[in-house]
Amino acid sequence: MSINQVAIGADAAGDFDEMVDTGLQTDVSDEILRRFEKVSLQLCTGALHYMTNQVRDSKNGDTSTSWNNCYMKNLKPLTPGRKIAARARTLSFLPPRPDTAAVLRKGENSPEFVAMESCGPGDVLVVDMNRMSDIGILGNMKTRRLWARGGVGLITDGSVRDLDKIRDEYGLAVFGAGRSAITGLEGSPFHEVNVPVSCDGVLVIPGDVIVADDDGVVVIPQQLAEQVIDWIEEHDQVEAAIAQMVDEQDASPGRFYPPSEELRQRVRDERAQQGE
Amino acid sequence: MSINQVAIGADAAGDFDEMVDTGLQTDVSDEILRRFEKVSLQLCTGALHYMTNQVRDSKNGDTSTSWNNCYMKNLKPLTPGRKIAARARTLSFLPPRPDTAAVLRKGENSPEFVAMESCGPGDVLVVDMNRMSDIGILGNMKTRRLWARGGVGLITDGSVRDLDKIRDEYGLAVFGAGRSAITGLEGSPFHEVNVPVSCDGVLVIPGDVIVADDDGVVVIPQQLAEQVIDWIEEHDQVEAAIAQMVDEQDASPGRFYPPSEELRQRVRDERAQQGE
Amino acid sequence: MSINQVAIGADAAGDFDEMVDTGLQTDVSDEILRRFEKVSLQLCTGALHYMTNQVRDSKNGDTSTSWNNCYMKNLKPLTPGRKIAARARTLSFLPPRPDTAAVLRKGENSPEFVAMESCGPGDVLVVDMNRMSDIGILGNMKTRRLWARGGVGLITDGSVRDLDKIRDEYGLAVFGAGRSAITGLEGSPFHEVNVPVSCDGVLVIPGDVIVADDDGVVVIPQQLAEQVIDWIEEHDQVEAAIAQMVDEQDASPGRFYPPSEELRQRVRDERAQQGE
Amino acid sequence: MSINQVAIGADAAGDFDEMVDTGLQTDVSDEILRRFEKVSLQLCTGALHYMTNQVRDSKNGDTSTSWNNCYMKNLKPLTPGRKIAARARTLSFLPPRPDTAAVLRKGENSPEFVAMESCGPGDVLVVDMNRMSDIGILGNMKTRRLWARGGVGLITDGSVRDLDKIRDEYGLAVFGAGRSAITGLEGSPFHEVNVPVSCDGVLVIPGDVIVADDDGVVVIPQQLAEQVIDWIEEHDQVEAAIAQMVDEQDASPGRFYPPSEELRQRVRDERAQQGE
Amino acid sequence: MSINQVAIGADAAGDFDEMVDTGLQTDVSDEILRRFEKVSLQLCTGALHYMTNQVRDSKNGDTSTSWNNCYMKNLKPLTPGRKIAARARTLSFLPPRPDTAAVLRKGENSPEFVAMESCGPGDVLVVDMNRMSDIGILGNMKTRRLWARGGVGLITDGSVRDLDKIRDEYGLAVFGAGRSAITGLEGSPFHEVNVPVSCDGVLVIPGDVIVADDDGVVVIPQQLAEQVIDWIEEHDQVEAAIAQMVDEQDASPGRFYPPSEELRQRVRDERAQQGE
Amino acid sequence: MSINQVAIGADAAGDFDEMVDTGLQTDVSDEILRRFEKVSLQLCTGALHYMTNQVRDSKNGDTSTSWNNCYMKNLKPLTPGRKIAARARTLSFLPPRPDTAAVLRKGENSPEFVAMESCGPGDVLVVDMNRMSDIGILGNMKTRRLWARGGVGLITDGSVRDLDKIRDEYGLAVFGAGRSAITGLEGSPFHEVNVPVSCDGVLVIPGDVIVADDDGVVVIPQQLAEQVIDWIEEHDQVEAAIAQMVDEQDASPGRFYPPSEELRQRVRDERAQQGE
Repeated sequence: MSINQVAIGADAAGDFDEMVDTGLQTDVSDEILRRFEKVSLQLCTGALHYMTNQVRDSKNGDTSTSWNNCYMKNLKPLTPGRKIAARARTLSFLPPRPDTAAVLRKGENSPEFVAMESCGPGDVLVVDMNRMSDIGILGNMKTRRLWARGGVGLITDGSVRDLDKIRDEYGLAVFGAGRSAITGLEGSPFHEVNVPVSCDGVLVIPGDVIVADDDGVVVIPQQLAEQVIDWIEEHDQVEAAIAQMVDEQDASPGRFYPPSEELRQRVRDERAQQGE
Repeated sequence: MSINQVAIGADAAGDFDEMVDTGLQTDVSDEILRRFEKVSLQLCTGALHYMTNQVRDSKNGDTSTSWNNCYMKNLKPLTPGRKIAARARTLSFLPPRPDTAAVLRKGENSPEFVAMESCGPGDVLVVDMNRMSDIGILGNMKTRRLWARGGVGLITDGSVRDLDKIRDEYGLAVFGAGRSAITGLEGSPFHEVNVPVSCDGVLVIPGDVIVADDDGVVVIPQQLAEQVIDWIEEHDQVEAAIAQMVDEQDASPGRFYPPSEELRQRVRDERAQQGE
Repeated sequence: MSINQVAIGADAAGDFDEMVDTGLQTDVSDEILRRFEKVSLQLCTGALHYMTNQVRDSKNGDTSTSWNNCYMKNLKPLTPGRKIAARARTLSFLPPRPDTAAVLRKGENSPEFVAMESCGPGDVLVVDMNRMSDIGILGNMKTRRLWARGGVGLITDGSVRDLDKIRDEYGLAVFGAGRSAITGLEGSPFHEVNVPVSCDGVLVIPGDVIVADDDGVVVIPQQLAEQVIDWIEEHDQVEAAIAQMVDEQDASPGRFYPPSEELRQRVRDERAQQGE
Repeated sequence: MSINQVAIGADAAGDFDEMVDTGLQTDVSDEILRRFEKVSLQLCTGALHYMTNQVRDSKNGDTSTSWNNCYMKNLKPLTPGRKIAARARTLSFLPPRPDTAAVLRKGENSPEFVAMESCGPGDVLVVDMNRMSDIGILGNMKTRRLWARGGVGLITDGSVRDLDKIRDEYGLAVFGAGRSAITGLEGSPFHEVNVPVSCDGVLVIPGDVIVADDDGVVVIPQQLAEQVIDWIEEHDQVEAAIAQMVDEQDASPGRFYPPSEELRQRVRDERAQQGE
Repeated sequence: MSINQVAIGADAAGDFDEMVDTGLQTDVSDEILRRFEKVSLQLCTGALHYMTNQVRDSKNGDTSTSWNNCYMKNLKPLTPGRKIAARARTLSFLPPRPDTAAVLRKGENSPEFVAMESCGPGDVLVVDMNRMSDIGILGNMKTRRLWARGGVGLITDGSVRDLDKIRDEYGLAVFGAGRSAITGLEGSPFHEVNVPVSCDGVLVIPGDVIVADDDGVVVIPQQLAEQVIDWIEEHDQVEAAIAQMVDEQDASPGRFYPPSEELRQRVRDERAQQGE
Repeated sequence: MSINQVAIGADAAGDFDEMVDTGLQTDVSDEILRRFEKVSLQLCTGALHYMTNQVRDSKNGDTSTSWNNCYMKNLKPLTPGRKIAARARTLSFLPPRPDTAAVLRKGENSPEFVAMESCGPGDVLVVDMNRMSDIGILGNMKTRRLWARGGVGLITDGSVRDLDKIRDEYGLAVFGAGRSAITGLEGSPFHEVNVPVSCDGVLVIPGDVIVADDDGVVVIPQQLAEQVIDWIEEHDQVEAAIAQMVDEQDASPGRFYPPSEELRQRVRDERAQQGE
């Protein structure tokens, strides 16, 4: 599908609705993930922003909820220097109380363990902790299976403990609200596995693409993943061409923004010739 | 059941487990709600705290999640001077994105309207907004049916708008993160109706008792409601007796704390005589 | 101009550009201010939001900066219960240092006094304090002339002191970051008078309309004021009609949202008949 | 002592040093308290600021710690509309742990009760809670003796519970970090009575004058109390004279600031004539 | 003493009471410190949590203040990568004012210098700064003697300056609220040396064991130090055994939690055989 | 001029006044910048503090605005380990709105590009973003010319994106509120170039010296730069002498503070002999 086409058509909407309800997901390919690993986070938010405008132009103006809502603005890179692009698996949260803690504990059926078991290579676990940044429920024992099964990392709006082991021994990439050696809660506070969740105020549907590095965490809706990375790669070349012109002409970048359609077409032609 | 008995027995646990899964709920009577309306919030948290210790003593020490988790510490009284005791109805949240906003809007089937319709006299709607305190999604039109159906009020960890009308015309009691005239989102950000939710980090199961006044919002698990109000009323009389002794003896309250078992028994006897 | 026309045409843009550069301003009439005094803040943000979409549809999709930026989200009503609609006069800020304090103090030429003198009936002074919420530079003496000259109130992202006198004796409406009895600075920290300023992160151009009540502070760009109030008054009647249908049909408001074009036209017709 | 004299002389320093060490205090008279009740908080901070400069000029430049440190900037008026001027009694804090809670509880010898007993008419209890704003240890029973003994109010950097009773039944004025129905701690967290404490980062020595109203809480060191109120009353008249001139001359207040020595002298003369 | 025995007996309480009053302390051996250096912070908080439950079971339910209060949740590792286990020496705080700054400065008798001199090898200085995170009073000159005398590091709820020198030249481990090049205060703001203090809301009694690394700072009460490290080392082996079973059985850790008494006993037996 | 002379004389004031109005600036030499690169941030704030007192002693006590206002307390080192001393170039901010975004965009005349072009070797760009810490407007393309023209770095109270490239490829030193991959705004939000600005609440006049490292960012007014670095270098030697005495005498630093005039003179003599 061309990146100039409208992002979400009528049929897609039907499929999407079903997807949200059933928890089924598109399988974004490993190849697409590898393409996302090479691009900057800013290009991901930029591409989503561009698509918002596309959608707006093709509709009657009432879907203005912003793709800015796809950026988790309060999370910190807890394993600095790591960049990941992975498929989201999810775990939702319900704060425990003494009455629920007494009856809901279920050993290996406890939701966090089920969630870890649902992950494999190319997957990242996104854990809704209802922004409880003071507590670090997830530690080295809970993430051991995520590592053993080849998972890529962990995203949570709570805090994390045992980070040294998770980083150095398991090699997982972790993005969260902070570090804490206090759990503060007993009984599993988790609720459901692989359902749509809110993490740091951002919707994550299982199968969405998570791109994360020291600049933060962004969610790419799975059904848009290919369009987004196509747009990014093209735009990246446009920016490279602008950078070259800036350097050659000893000129301000402002001279070349917004990029002319002529420049965009030139880049598209070059990409077509190179078979990209 | 005597307030000295353990709060949650084996059978209760089974029932409770089912309750959480099915969303069914105990019907706390209007009479119990009226008893809660007369007592201070501090006695509610005090009673829950006492019961935590009771549970601990009767178990092997591993249910220490605190009832302190039943107090919503960041919510403010947005209609100061109001005190309510009501049954919780609930509404859960998923942050919208342009793709979901485009497909999930459903007119009167939208979750917030279904939730409002599920409320009646003696009910309060508890709305999880994932602590999005900057935005005020709920306003005078959305709460109109809550009022029309006889609901008592609204509890949310988001913000509220049109508060003057909600307070003055509808007479609803509102507790929330603040006021805001910005919605910031389009499409319904709500998800499910009358399921267990997290509001300001506190678990609320439909049917739980909400007691709220200018000192904050506390959740009383429905299956404990009678035990809790029994304990509170007895303890209230114990404190009244201590206050009297403090005044009569011109002495520090510290002389009478913790209350002696003799004093507690005296109060129990008096209450028995008065048929309470 | 019809409210269905594009908000800012080519000519308006040229005028506007000049206006920003020269500090000249449109004179929003007292009649328009009186119309704004009667409507809710939420309708103001709603109208601006609607116009954003209008602008987008008529352009090539790249002016998506949101009108949400017109709401000052951190200011509090410091004189609760007051509602104002007034023309903005402005005062900008530069933090003082001992070297500038020593040379820049200029008695009655000090910018804050010049700004106060520039206000008259129907005017509100908007004071950029660079979000210095700990300090209360503006007090009863500095605002005395604002009162004497008939000004309506004061908006600032800093704190205010002597509020009892400002409220009770002067009757000014005040919206700010808080109260503080500490100035913390010496020498006038103010810079320029009646230039575009940022207050709580919101652009205010002298002559813009400020509408403020307990729900917050919103800025209506002066050149849009008439369009905005026209849209609001029409939409207010649409909502009144919906409320009536909700009550009569005992139905959820969701049944009537978004308002049908038929309903909107019916309201327009009624308004035309009534000569509004 | 003239307000033009240096605030702290050599002898005063010796006395002061002893005062801090022994906890003894000057007895600020009820008459001085009554004078403070009539003036604005801003004049209190203004007077202290003036005296800082006085001290600086008479020393070698190294006592620049600011009197701004005498303003408790995070406390809120929890009984709005109340103004007090009272002598500080103090209570210090040590966070409890299970081991200390087990051994340190001492009934009526518990520090908070001893502190309440040390208060009488004209006294306000200042309670250091180490800025633990989430918890409300002080409630209606703990403050009952403060009320019974004629105390004026309560200042704390923690939260307070049972505020309705404390305000309506006891009539105490309360300034604190907020309201909370959670104590969160067991065992008395208090430590020492009537020693110098830090409350919201401000030093309070028993016997200091506390002036508090909706603009906040300020501490006037006891040995400066008379100087400060003298300066304030004179300055108040200077400002009244300026206000009159502003009104009469229809001029900006900036014309009269800083007040000329001639004006100050005229006010002093008038006060001398009136025997003030 | 077995780790199954109740943590604090009647005699211990008496000793402890005296310890708090006199400031005397148990000498935790260097050997115990070395054992703590090898274990994770999470095991320290876990052990304290376990002991809370032990104490509760053996008492009448009223010592529920949590050991969670032993974790300093707002402090950051300012020398990342460092782990320490050391005996606490302490320094308390009183905010200065111009009047106290003028009389309390005492050169080398100033409390911070006395405190530094009280430290030796194996000691860490815990400095209460009343959470004044904006200011950095402690810098390279003040900590020079801590380094010269062989101290291990510095813990404070204020900020620190000259950190490059303190880290690189002195090799001290520092945990604090942040970095700041502003002192903001003049005159020593410190008060007493080697008394119980509150640091970030946590009680520290001189002689307590501080364990700190990138996961935060935890206080182990000195009289529990040996019990705690015994429990940790046993539990660490239990977790190692679980990790091995998880890996061998390709199973979720949830299968083995909470650890069976049989597994615990097997580990105890192995430890006994190995003479640990 | 001797460092014992008053910092700002009458002539300087006149010059300074003109400088602020015209935006012209003193040219602080590269040699002075190199001297600042070698000293600690704490000595910069210390020197400014000393000069505040000097100014106070020579005036009538009314210029007490503190040099503490020269420290940007909320900015973080985003390229840790970098230390810079550079001349400030500045860029001011006005939050955009849809109406201004539509008319104010001006390609390479856009203020941020003009500002970048105004920088050269030894210059750092200080960007007022009105403390909008959530958004990262400045990224790799906008800073490309800053790098190409030999600029030293970037200081802003907003966030920054593309930091990896800015740090690794361009080698710029960056100090800001944080990192963000969201711009959130469209159209240039910038306003004027090389005018006095407020950055994190600190006044920066073009030409001022910025010294920044992991301890933060401090502004040295350009007309004081030489005095400040003279004082610092002398004071640095005084402190080195004290450190030596502390080590040799095995004594507390408190013995030697404040430094005696004799010690200061000895250092001055040594410096004079060495021709410094």
